[in-house]
Amino acid sequence: MSPCPHLVLGLLSHVLLFSLPDLLDHHLLHTHLGRTRRLPLSSPASTITACMEHIMPFLIKFLMGPILLVSQGTRDYNPKQMAIREKVFNTIVSCFKRHGAETIDTPVFELKETLTGKYGEDSKLIYDLKDQGGELLSLRYDLTVPFARFLAMNKISNIKRYHIAKVYRRDNPAMTRGRYREFYQCDFDIAGHYDPMIPDAECLRIVSEILGELDLGDFHIKVNDRRILDGMFAVCGVPDDKFRTICSTVDKLDKMCWEDVKNEMVKEKGLSEEAADMIGQYVSMQGGMDLAVRLLEDPKMSQSKQACAGLSDMKQLFSYLELFQVTDKVVFDLSLARGLDYYTGVIYEAMLGPAGAEESLSVGSVAGGGRYDGLVGMFDPKGRAVPCVGVSIGVERIFSILEQKAEAEKVRTTEVQVLVASAQKNLLEERLRLVTELWNAGIKAESMFKKNPKLLSQLQHCEESGIPLVAILGEQELKNGMVKLRTVATREEVRDSCVCVCVCNSLIAIKSRQC
Amino acid sequence: MSPCPHLVLGLLSHVLLFSLPDLLDHHLLHTHLGRTRRLPLSSPASTITACMEHIMPFLIKFLMGPILLVSQGTRDYNPKQMAIREKVFNTIVSCFKRHGAETIDTPVFELKETLTGKYGEDSKLIYDLKDQGGELLSLRYDLTVPFARFLAMNKISNIKRYHIAKVYRRDNPAMTRGRYREFYQCDFDIAGHYDPMIPDAECLRIVSEILGELDLGDFHIKVNDRRILDGMFAVCGVPDDKFRTICSTVDKLDKMCWEDVKNEMVKEKGLSEEAADMIGQYVSMQGGMDLAVRLLEDPKMSQSKQACAGLSDMKQLFSYLELFQVTDKVVFDLSLARGLDYYTGVIYEAMLGPAGAEESLSVGSVAGGGRYDGLVGMFDPKGRAVPCVGVSIGVERIFSILEQKAEAEKVRTTEVQVLVASAQKNLLEERLRLVTELWNAGIKAESMFKKNPKLLSQLQHCEESGIPLVAILGEQELKNGMVKLRTVATREEVRDSCVCVCVCNSLIAIKSRQC
Repeated sequence: MSPCPHLVLGLLSHVLLFSLPDLLDHHLLHTHLGRTRRLPLSSPASTITACMEHIMPFLIKFLMGPILLVSQGTRDYNPKQMAIREKVFNTIVSCFKRHGAETIDTPVFELKETLTGKYGEDSKLIYDLKDQGGELLSLRYDLTVPFARFLAMNKISNIKRYHIAKVYRRDNPAMTRGRYREFYQCDFDIAGHYDPMIPDAECLRIVSEILGELDLGDFHIKVNDRRILDGMFAVCGVPDDKFRTICSTVDKLDKMCWEDVKNEMVKEKGLSEEAADMIGQYVSMQGGMDLAVRLLEDPKMSQSKQACAGLSDMKQLFSYLELFQVTDKVVFDLSLARGLDYYTGVIYEAMLGPAGAEESLSVGSVAGGGRYDGLVGMFDPKGRAVPCVGVSIGVERIFSILEQKAEAEKVRTTEVQVLVASAQKNLLEERLRLVTELWNAGIKAESMFKKNPKLLSQLQHCEESGIPLVAILGEQELKNGMVKLRTVATREEVRDSCVCVCVCNSLIAIKSRQC
Repeated sequence: MSPCPHLVLGLLSHVLLFSLPDLLDHHLLHTHLGRTRRLPLSSPASTITACMEHIMPFLIKFLMGPILLVSQGTRDYNPKQMAIREKVFNTIVSCFKRHGAETIDTPVFELKETLTGKYGEDSKLIYDLKDQGGELLSLRYDLTVPFARFLAMNKISNIKRYHIAKVYRRDNPAMTRGRYREFYQCDFDIAGHYDPMIPDAECLRIVSEILGELDLGDFHIKVNDRRILDGMFAVCGVPDDKFRTICSTVDKLDKMCWEDVKNEMVKEKGLSEEAADMIGQYVSMQGGMDLAVRLLEDPKMSQSKQACAGLSDMKQLFSYLELFQVTDKVVFDLSLARGLDYYTGVIYEAMLGPAGAEESLSVGSVAGGGRYDGLVGMFDPKGRAVPCVGVSIGVERIFSILEQKAEAEKVRTTEVQVLVASAQKNLLEERLRLVTELWNAGIKAESMFKKNPKLLSQLQHCEESGIPLVAILGEQELKNGMVKLRTVATREEVRDSCVCVCVCNSLIAIKSRQC
């Protein structure tokens, strides 16, 4: 680039950095820029960079809508979003409880050393806390490593537990597609020495139940096994030390076409073309128990002891899936690799859309997991292993889909059953007395915080908040010890006896309407 | 201290630091000490310090029980603790919902500037994130400041919301008394321009409902008003610029006797003895509406416009508390000050134990809050104010109390209704088929992950986990299409028809037992 546009841009950036806050008379922008202005802006390039980083996001938000006051890649949940979230969590937790899980919680930050060496290349995405004296801490990256640490620390050798909590990754956010830096994970794991594939099959059944109940349309779950992948790499002639890196490349098949994946293997990672082609044949295979049976007889695959162990277990897995009535949702897919280091056996990933649909149409994975038999041992002073298998539901993507669906809908964000209103002035005391009786009886009720609200505004509040009933106090009713109960939607009214002294009757009337 | 014991201790520390890990052959301790060993241990004193900080906590934990692998002042919740926590949260959320609240959520970290200048002296307790390029971030210190930021950012001028989430303070933990560095807050706040004291009174009603329902024994709520405190300071002759610091000293009256508080005012903060004594007279006053009425006629207090405004509102507050039926729980107490800067009106704090009991007997405050009419304006570009009042329930202390109570009790940590068991070998398939039917019908059920578990171990599992029913499969029953249902506690048995093909009858039988 010639120096000329650089200089012009630099000048423009300088104006934005130093004059915009005054122009807008925006004290938050002033505060926000305090730090930027103390940066050494020695060259036009550094001024442009500072401007792009500190002014542009602010300016865009300022012009487009609400002021950006939260960290990049994070978000608030407003009441409507929370109502959707609560519904999703209830469905998920009910399923976990139906399968007999207990729950635990762990701190949001762990000792840094706990997370070190568990995530391979992704470790660079870990958020560290500032060293303020004392320990070196990091925000948790997932719930699996803290779970393994919890098991080792408490010497627990078997448990079926769920954990719903936020995790943190300094990744490039793509918030419209539900990818955040702070996001929820809903994990279910089974730890313990058991007969092979029974807990693994239950995890797949759980994914299937949850995705079915959330009513997200069609979905399918891909399964594979790390031992099958490793065996396949071995028989295709991949050198031992390249297993993990070739595995990472295979993992990209859901985003890249085979040609590009092959290119990366051969040109970037130095694999022979012959080996790559052989891998290409295998990773295009999909099926069910039949495929496992066929591959057990495959002249090459059957040479690998590891592959055979994986394939026999895959056969077994499908026999349990049959009993669990989920074989129609599960596909044995040799292209599934999954990035994380700690998997040792079965792995799986659930996608929305029917099996075999164009991957580009799909919103990507909504659940994933697998077996990790070595992780707990890494935390145990004596290296004692606790075999584990688990699944993590990617709820943020599910929230995004359900939020989009609910955009046009009216979602209730409170559960108020009745509003205590007044038709005349000076009835605040009577309203507060009645609402107190309702609370005492366990009824969800509210009354407006104004001394003399208009009846119309009280009724409007009911309609806006979806409150089904309104109890209207008037002087005439009070004299007779009555209350008027109106169903907001139909405007149907009944009078019930004895408001202030004893509201039993009206309570029963309200309760019998079951709202 | 003479150098001799110093040297001996230094030597001992050195041995612990460098030989203990080898002695114990403990690889985690090795990792844990990697950093310490690279510290410049130039003097015996620094070696002792390093040893105390890094070895002693580890050694104590190693000898006493589980290995310490979590950060200081944080803890895991095990399934039993989670069961208690869930019960407490359910009670609290039910109450918030009964009062018509919506809920929101905010990120666990905020831009550092959002938290700056909100907490006075306590700002030093804020956890900062490491500057990894990009923004400067801090973990939230409470839920009130993020709430105010949320209102300003979304231009919301009225809302009744609750928020239950973890907050972070780098304080000295006292974990046995429920004081942690990571802990939950349960906040309920009302934002909006309303007639005075109605929302404030509802907050006190809510505290009263929750503490009553949690069954923690007797409790009382102290109330005061920042305007009454400021007016009192003014009429007692405290200089304007000393209001906040004298207020902080008054706040210590729940931990220190009056003599010590007076000393701090006079000797450390340079207040005249006369002014201090005058304050002393006022802060010993406790009462109800009567005290507000008396102070409104107090020759000195009545000179302060601020105090009069506060006292009139206090009178009004007590009239609403009467209607809300909570006056027996609320005490107007002029010694209540509360530390945070942002309060502008009514403040309150709830303690366990009857009013007037020795403060030292009490576990301290279990809820607190007040009115903060200026906070939202600090985040609004145009400084628009949104008056707010709210309360925060200190659930950690409540958890500690309930955990101690539950120590001897058996608390169920799962909700499994029925275990599908087998009396003979080779019935895994039949067990999995039946448990699938139960899940399909929405029944909480499990079966053991072994191919051939012993009947005794299956029954033991029921007793340990509190599972009330067991469905026992045997060859004889299968032939007849039956299942044996046993009530674990009473060992009473019934046979029901048609296990595998159609389990309707047994389901109905199980459901009718309502467990």
